[in-house]
Amino acid sequence: MTPMQRIGRAARKASHFLKTASTEQKNKALFEAARLLRDNAKTILIANAHDLAAHPDLTAAQLDRLTLDAPRIEAIANSLETVAALPDPVGTTITEWRVANGLHFTRVRVPLGVIGVIYESRPNVTADAATLCLKSGNACILRPGSESFATAQAIAVLITQALHRTDLPEACVQLVPSPDRALVGELLQLEDDVDVIIPRGGKSLIARVKAESRIPVLAHLDGNNHVYVDRDADLAMACHIVLNAKMRRTGICGATETLLVDHACAATHLAALITALLEAGCEVRVEHDSLALDPRLKLATESDWSTEYLEAIIAVKIVGGVDEAITHIEHYGSHHTDAIVTDNEQTARRFLAQVDSAIVLHNASTQFADGSEFGMGAEIGIATGRLHARGPVGLEQLTTFKYIARGNGHARAG
Amino acid sequence: MTPMQRIGRAARKASHFLKTASTEQKNKALFEAARLLRDNAKTILIANAHDLAAHPDLTAAQLDRLTLDAPRIEAIANSLETVAALPDPVGTTITEWRVANGLHFTRVRVPLGVIGVIYESRPNVTADAATLCLKSGNACILRPGSESFATAQAIAVLITQALHRTDLPEACVQLVPSPDRALVGELLQLEDDVDVIIPRGGKSLIARVKAESRIPVLAHLDGNNHVYVDRDADLAMACHIVLNAKMRRTGICGATETLLVDHACAATHLAALITALLEAGCEVRVEHDSLALDPRLKLATESDWSTEYLEAIIAVKIVGGVDEAITHIEHYGSHHTDAIVTDNEQTARRFLAQVDSAIVLHNASTQFADGSEFGMGAEIGIATGRLHARGPVGLEQLTTFKYIARGNGHARAG
Repeated sequence: MTPMQRIGRAARKASHFLKTASTEQKNKALFEAARLLRDNAKTILIANAHDLAAHPDLTAAQLDRLTLDAPRIEAIANSLETVAALPDPVGTTITEWRVANGLHFTRVRVPLGVIGVIYESRPNVTADAATLCLKSGNACILRPGSESFATAQAIAVLITQALHRTDLPEACVQLVPSPDRALVGELLQLEDDVDVIIPRGGKSLIARVKAESRIPVLAHLDGNNHVYVDRDADLAMACHIVLNAKMRRTGICGATETLLVDHACAATHLAALITALLEAGCEVRVEHDSLALDPRLKLATESDWSTEYLEAIIAVKIVGGVDEAITHIEHYGSHHTDAIVTDNEQTARRFLAQVDSAIVLHNASTQFADGSEFGMGAEIGIATGRLHARGPVGLEQLTTFKYIARGNGHARAG
Repeated sequence: MTPMQRIGRAARKASHFLKTASTEQKNKALFEAARLLRDNAKTILIANAHDLAAHPDLTAAQLDRLTLDAPRIEAIANSLETVAALPDPVGTTITEWRVANGLHFTRVRVPLGVIGVIYESRPNVTADAATLCLKSGNACILRPGSESFATAQAIAVLITQALHRTDLPEACVQLVPSPDRALVGELLQLEDDVDVIIPRGGKSLIARVKAESRIPVLAHLDGNNHVYVDRDADLAMACHIVLNAKMRRTGICGATETLLVDHACAATHLAALITALLEAGCEVRVEHDSLALDPRLKLATESDWSTEYLEAIIAVKIVGGVDEAITHIEHYGSHHTDAIVTDNEQTARRFLAQVDSAIVLHNASTQFADGSEFGMGAEIGIATGRLHARGPVGLEQLTTFKYIARGNGHARAG
């Protein structure tokens, strides 16, 4: 057996134990992990400094995402305790019913089993993913971004320690042994011992995972999100929502990347929307015909419609109305989160029904695409696939179910 | 574009139309298809005769499954009408809630999109799969077994005609153009236009699908199902359930293939169980130590524990108690359907919690593994994977959902 195969086998074994572990025991481990993270903040910061020193070429944004300090470690510890406080989905009854012959059916939530999580450089994801998997009764194998590997290891070691101290198998949470990319490939081959792969990253990562693996995937693709400002939109509301959707935080997957404006209100709304964005420090890329509106505007090219900037840049396009907006979103979007601003209920219904995204909003900012804003508590990300989980993936989405049928000597007739 | 790519593109286009088609229109098409099937029974029987003549080497069981007659065509037409009468899952609200800031969330069922179904020789599956996909708002591409291809074509042509007559796109239901196995490979490559593949067949088909395709799979694996007769089982109930689980119908995926008997009741229960099975015409394969019980017994080998016979054959094993039964089932089973017979509630709970199968039963026959017995109406099969659908796949399981958030100018704080 290779080291990765051993990790897979250990995870499977741990998951058998974990699937019937009590809520109390899981919570105890989470609280203990939070305590250990606080007590060993210095150790984590040393590992983090090591990661930072090893990657001098990171952009300012990347550096900011990777860097930990005392408040950020406290925030991570807090989020562990938040998850501990959430209701345990495992064992809960989704539905139950009795059929005419007296057989009683219960549909009960059970853990998925073993989850492989492949993610980018933010160090808090290691703790979040481990926490959500543990609370939902799943063993996990984590593959953090190589830039944050030492930090992730420091955090994982403390979580393992917490598992050990609370009598849960240490293999409930495992990190791949090194950031070697070949190990990602090996992880993707563990189809007997890994039940789901959750890749958090761009299209190329997800394409690789799907190409290499027979393991089911909960894809977390990029958010190429849109706000469509309809002819019946209130201008003040449109400006308020568009500014928030683009600029509140530009680096999150719920940020808007393209603004679509109905040609029927372009004369009244376009200049105001563009000015508001420019004033807020956003680079605005428009089609040729709109360039004259402001000397600060840049020309959009075809590739802009498909780009998830995750920066203070927005592409703006005039469309012929709601149907063209829908067509544009279906063609260029990533089925993540899209919004319409309109006072026309019928137009809103059309948009909400036709746009085939995990989250569609009416008169609200795309930045609400976040499990905590849905009232779900913590989330591991926003799923953009169509099967199993769609939208925010929280504790409930990390479970599956089984049917329990109880009879009294029931044999099937016929 | 290849012919298969054109089929994929046409299915995608049809699915855009179908996803917002009214329940009335879909039902009208189903009733029209039922009428056309009845009116053109002769055409279907001629095609069926062609299939039968082209495959003289089929076993009696295969021949029986493939052969249509007037009552069977009537049953197919009936099942179309049954599905039409089922509630339409599309557009129904799963949950809705409002969060503190006033944003209102609705989780609404929507179709999966385009479904590729790859299945074996039973001719009714063509109609059942088309019907369930259509009613749940999904376009489908069907790949029937090569032995029943002409029959499937005859049925599909009539369904297409019904779609045409009720103003639904004909591409809502398409058959691959020929039984050529290479087309299965081409279907598996249509990742842009096919959202889910449902393979109904054995391990080798599902392994092929998972290996070749990046499209998510709702696997319908074999049912290597078990009945465990516990030390606290009532003997009469155990005999009643085991006989039914094995012999009611041996060819369905819910049939039991292995009987596990607790060593603690082997002295009292084993002989009676074996005799009942033998008397019912079942071949019984036992371990060496039990061979002396009856001259008609055969010796089981290691491969028997993994075999889905789908025939009047059963493997019987003595186990050390419920824990060994669970271990055996987890090792050899296919996570389909497994049952325990016991009067001990604690033992039952242990079995129901630990056996990780889509369906687990207490004091009831595994033959209840059928959507109609669950009260779901028709089903396309029993899913044995862990993601999305598990157990019977009916209309609801052929949908996904999206989140609709409605605000009044909501921007996210912070």
